[in-house]
Amino acid sequence: MNRILLESHEVADDGTALLRGPRAHHVRSVLRARPGARLRVGVVNGPAGEGTVRSTTDAQVLLDCVFSSDSAPDMEPLDLLLALPRPKVLRRLVPQLAALGVRHIFLTNAWRVEKNYFDTHVLEEPRLREGLIEGLSQAGTTRLPEISIHRHLRRLLEDELDGALPAPTARLLAHPAAPVRLGRWIPAAARALIAVGPEGGWIDREVTLFKKHGFQGVSIGSRILRSDTVCLALLAVLREIFPSGMAGGE
Amino acid sequence: MNRILLESHEVADDGTALLRGPRAHHVRSVLRARPGARLRVGVVNGPAGEGTVRSTTDAQVLLDCVFSSDSAPDMEPLDLLLALPRPKVLRRLVPQLAALGVRHIFLTNAWRVEKNYFDTHVLEEPRLREGLIEGLSQAGTTRLPEISIHRHLRRLLEDELDGALPAPTARLLAHPAAPVRLGRWIPAAARALIAVGPEGGWIDREVTLFKKHGFQGVSIGSRILRSDTVCLALLAVLREIFPSGMAGGE
Repeated sequence: MNRILLESHEVADDGTALLRGPRAHHVRSVLRARPGARLRVGVVNGPAGEGTVRSTTDAQVLLDCVFSSDSAPDMEPLDLLLALPRPKVLRRLVPQLAALGVRHIFLTNAWRVEKNYFDTHVLEEPRLREGLIEGLSQAGTTRLPEISIHRHLRRLLEDELDGALPAPTARLLAHPAAPVRLGRWIPAAARALIAVGPEGGWIDREVTLFKKHGFQGVSIGSRILRSDTVCLALLAVLREIFPSGMAGGE
Repeated sequence: MNRILLESHEVADDGTALLRGPRAHHVRSVLRARPGARLRVGVVNGPAGEGTVRSTTDAQVLLDCVFSSDSAPDMEPLDLLLALPRPKVLRRLVPQLAALGVRHIFLTNAWRVEKNYFDTHVLEEPRLREGLIEGLSQAGTTRLPEISIHRHLRRLLEDELDGALPAPTARLLAHPAAPVRLGRWIPAAARALIAVGPEGGWIDREVTLFKKHGFQGVSIGSRILRSDTVCLALLAVLREIFPSGMAGGE
């Protein structure tokens, strides 16, 4: 944890916050923080700041928090549309996507997505939120990505996507056979959404549908990468195309 | 498995290869290949080709292989110097590094590497090879990255690195505070080595040592990423800076 994340209701009006459970354990046993130690803290979807350890007991840690206009990195101008991967892959990927600063994660059905992937408890809101907060704590930031779940790709593209994204968002479709190499792609907007297919790829009909809705095919080479690897790779490259500074950025 | 990898001793002079164990299971149960089906095959560190299923039984699959000048992606002109991560992270990372086409992986000690990480069975040669081959199978390629293990960072930098790399290799040190953003970096060589620190980072003395040995600091932003995430992110960006086509490339 490079920043201790607090829910807003956990911070009292006087700035104190009482940690129990895994965060208290982390502060005491991993950081070995004693009274007087200063830690980076932040409120989920709120400000970042500094917490001074006032006291610790076996089970809890009391912090005095001060939230200033801190230097926590803002989100990146990047959105991900991802064919729902296997639950195990998704669980591993969610914290990493949050750490990388993705804004909106659209999880969608597709022809080659196994239908029972939608039944996993990994998709339950508390689990997703837990994974996202793990990623924010790692990256030292506070803004929670939005995740939405879509059981119909066509409906997502035809009815839901326009409303969920600000208008000038470049739309990209990752495809090993696409002629445009992502590293050479020149964006015409200040924000990008990238669509990543299931293991086995999108079917032709889906590719046609994406193109009809303004998606441009891009490639990062002919290697066939696991869907979690490819998400991280694409987002890493896009972060360099849309480099954001500290704070600001929206 | 997007390519069935064979050891050279497994391919008979007439091109037949007999699969048992996990690969036979994969061909029969995942690919559901019947006699006559054609599969992508390849020899570890050798040519890629096509295998036609001649027969299957409960436990084995017999392939007739033809190795032509195939289109398997070559390795990328990229090397990784990585402070040895936790065994669990390393095990997960090795196949992904192979899939991304890294040439040489230098695993090294550093001040903030826990010494017992070197005792893990994950570092045993057969385990490493197994992980690398998993990544090659995923990516559809055949060239095995080299992995070397270094218990002394200073000795690696002072005595071992020059001999292990061809001379014109750009040397980069990943560091969140570095002033040069990797996406804007202009290489002066056709090949790059990137050094990635342990959780908690390199200590100042190590950074000084890297700089003395020609490493330039680069950053992909102020987020603190897990060491596996940061490796994949850095390599993904470098692959776009050094894009390789199909085949050739050395």
